[in-house]
Amino acid sequence: MTEASVRYRDFYRGRRVMVTGGLGFIGSSLAHHLVDLGADVLLVDGMIPDYGGNLFNIADIEGRVRVNISDVRNDAAMAVLVRDRELIFNLAGQVSHIDSMRDPYTDLDINCRAQLSMLEACRRHNPAVRVVFAGTRQVYGRPERLPVDERHLVRPMDVNGVNKAAGEYYHLLYSNVFGVRACSLRLTNVYGPRQLIKHNRQGFIGWFIRLAIEGAEIQVYGDGTQMRDFVFVDDAADAFLRAGACSGCDGEVFNVGGLEPISHRDLVAMLIEVAGSGSMRYVPWPPEKQRIDIGSFYSDSSKFTGTTGWRPAVTLREGLGRTVAFYRANMPHYLEAA
Amino acid sequence: MTEASVRYRDFYRGRRVMVTGGLGFIGSSLAHHLVDLGADVLLVDGMIPDYGGNLFNIADIEGRVRVNISDVRNDAAMAVLVRDRELIFNLAGQVSHIDSMRDPYTDLDINCRAQLSMLEACRRHNPAVRVVFAGTRQVYGRPERLPVDERHLVRPMDVNGVNKAAGEYYHLLYSNVFGVRACSLRLTNVYGPRQLIKHNRQGFIGWFIRLAIEGAEIQVYGDGTQMRDFVFVDDAADAFLRAGACSGCDGEVFNVGGLEPISHRDLVAMLIEVAGSGSMRYVPWPPEKQRIDIGSFYSDSSKFTGTTGWRPAVTLREGLGRTVAFYRANMPHYLEAA
Repeated sequence: MTEASVRYRDFYRGRRVMVTGGLGFIGSSLAHHLVDLGADVLLVDGMIPDYGGNLFNIADIEGRVRVNISDVRNDAAMAVLVRDRELIFNLAGQVSHIDSMRDPYTDLDINCRAQLSMLEACRRHNPAVRVVFAGTRQVYGRPERLPVDERHLVRPMDVNGVNKAAGEYYHLLYSNVFGVRACSLRLTNVYGPRQLIKHNRQGFIGWFIRLAIEGAEIQVYGDGTQMRDFVFVDDAADAFLRAGACSGCDGEVFNVGGLEPISHRDLVAMLIEVAGSGSMRYVPWPPEKQRIDIGSFYSDSSKFTGTTGWRPAVTLREGLGRTVAFYRANMPHYLEAA
Repeated sequence: MTEASVRYRDFYRGRRVMVTGGLGFIGSSLAHHLVDLGADVLLVDGMIPDYGGNLFNIADIEGRVRVNISDVRNDAAMAVLVRDRELIFNLAGQVSHIDSMRDPYTDLDINCRAQLSMLEACRRHNPAVRVVFAGTRQVYGRPERLPVDERHLVRPMDVNGVNKAAGEYYHLLYSNVFGVRACSLRLTNVYGPRQLIKHNRQGFIGWFIRLAIEGAEIQVYGDGTQMRDFVFVDDAADAFLRAGACSGCDGEVFNVGGLEPISHRDLVAMLIEVAGSGSMRYVPWPPEKQRIDIGSFYSDSSKFTGTTGWRPAVTLREGLGRTVAFYRANMPHYLEAA
C-alpha cells in the first residue's frame, strides 16, 4: 500500500459519515469498509420495496453502525440527519431505468427533487460537509466514441438518465456556487455481493449471476457483441472512499469504470464457467429494451485515477467468483421480500 | 423572400398551434406572427405575477386567438389542451435565475416536472404533435471557448440552468425514444417589445432599456468588457416558426444567437445614444450576481442556420430603436400589476 493510499484510509478514523441508500448494494458495501476504517457511520435508507435496500446487507455490522430508516424525499428528516455529518456518501436513488420509463414522476422526485432538497439542507444546516454523489454512465446515453471520457456530451436516453443528470448538476452547482463541497462519480456497471437479484429491472449483471447459480438459461440480446465495462463493488466502494478524502475532487465529475471492456457474450461465457452452471441463448431484442439501448459502452477513468490514484483492483473473473460464492451462501436473503 | 422561407410561412395557414407562455414576451410576439400567417392559435399562460405574462401583450390580436389561462403545472388542464394541437411552442417557464436560487423548488416544478408532465400528456393524448421547446444558453454555464456551439458541455451555474437542462433533455428523450417529435432552441439574450421590465430579475437588457427611457443611471458591473449576443424578439419568433415547420429539427438542440457580440459597456452606450436619454456608471459586482456570472458568452448558431436557413435580420441598433419606441408608446402597461 502506498503512502497516499494509507492516508485516505486514515482519513476515516472517527469521521462522522452518512451513507444514503446505506442498506443498498453499494451503500452497504461502503458501510463495511467505513466500519473497518473506524468511521462513525450513519446509514439512511428508505427501504422502498424492490429498490435494493436489504437489512441482511448489514446484518454482520449491525452493532457498529447507526441505521435510520427514512426516505430521502422526507425533507424534514433529511434536514435533521445531515446536521452533524462531516461527509455524505449520497447513493440513494431509483436505479431502474425500466421503472423510470413507466413511472417518471417517482424517479424525478427521488433522483432530482430529493437531491436538491438534501443539498439545500446541507447549505442551511451543514455547509461544511462534503458530499460524494453516485452518478451514472447513463447520463451519456449512446456514446459517440469509445472509451467515453468526461468530455463526452450528456445526452440521456431514458428518464432515469435525465433525472440523474439533473441530480448531478445540482451537486456541482452547490459545490461551485454555494460552497457545499460535492463531486459526482459516474459509475459504470457495478456488480458483486449484496446486489438486488430479486428481479431483473436494475440492470442485467446481477440477474445473470442469479440465473447462472440457479443453472438456468441466460438470454443474450442480439448477437451479444456489445461491450460493457464492470466494476467490482469493493472497487466502487474504494472510489467513494478516495473521493470523500480528496479536496481535488470537489466540484468535479469523474468516470469510474472497469479494468477492461468485455462483450455480453464473453461475459456470460465467463460467468457460466466460473459458476460451473447455467447456459446461454441468443434471443432477439425486446422492443422496450431496444428503444433505450445504447450499443457498446465503456469508460475512460483516467481523470479519476490521475486525481485520486484509484484503480480497479479486482479482475472480472475474480469478482464473479466472489459474487457467485456469496450468493451460493446467502441466496435466500436475496429472494425474500424486500 | 426565398422559396424555402415562403414555404415555412405557408406551413402555418390553418395550422392548430398552441403557445405555452403565450402571454409572455416571446410567446406573445410569436402569437402575432402566427395570427398573421393564418394559424389557429391557442395561447396558454399561467399569468403568475412577475413572470412576464401580460394581457396587454395580445390586446391588439385578442379577437384572433383563443386564450386559456392555466398553469403548465396543472396536469389535468394540460392533458386536455394538448389534444387537438398539431404544434406546441413550449415557452412557459420560470426565467429568473435569481429567483431560482431563492426558491429552487418552484423553478423545478415549472421548468422540470411540468415539462415532463406535458410531454407525457402528448405521448398519451397526442403523439403526432411536434413540440418546439424554448431552451436557454444558461445550460452551458461559464463557457470554455467562444463562440459556444452545441458541442460545448452542459454545465449550468444556477438552479434555473439545471432545471432548464433537464426540461430540454426530456424533450429530446421523448423525441428520440417515445416518438413525440421535439427540439430545443437554446436562446441567448432576447430583447424587444413586450418584455417584462417591471423588475430586474429576468436579465438585464429589458431593465436597461427601461432605465434609459426614464433617463436614469444604468449601472454596469465591473469594467463592462464582457461580451454577450442579443436576439431581437422577431428574429427569435422567426426561429420558432422555422423549427416548427422543419422535420430536420426533430430530436435536436440548436443555438439561436445574435448577429454579433457586443460588450456590456458598448451596448449601454448604444442604448443611451438610441434612446437619447440615460447615463452609464461602472459599479462593483454585487456578490449574489458575481457568484453566478459566466464571463463573456456568445453563441455559434450555424447549426440552426444550416438546418433551417434562419439568420437574425434585425441589427442591434435597429432593434433597440424599435424597442425604445414601443415602450415610449406603451410604458404604463408594463409598469402596472402583472
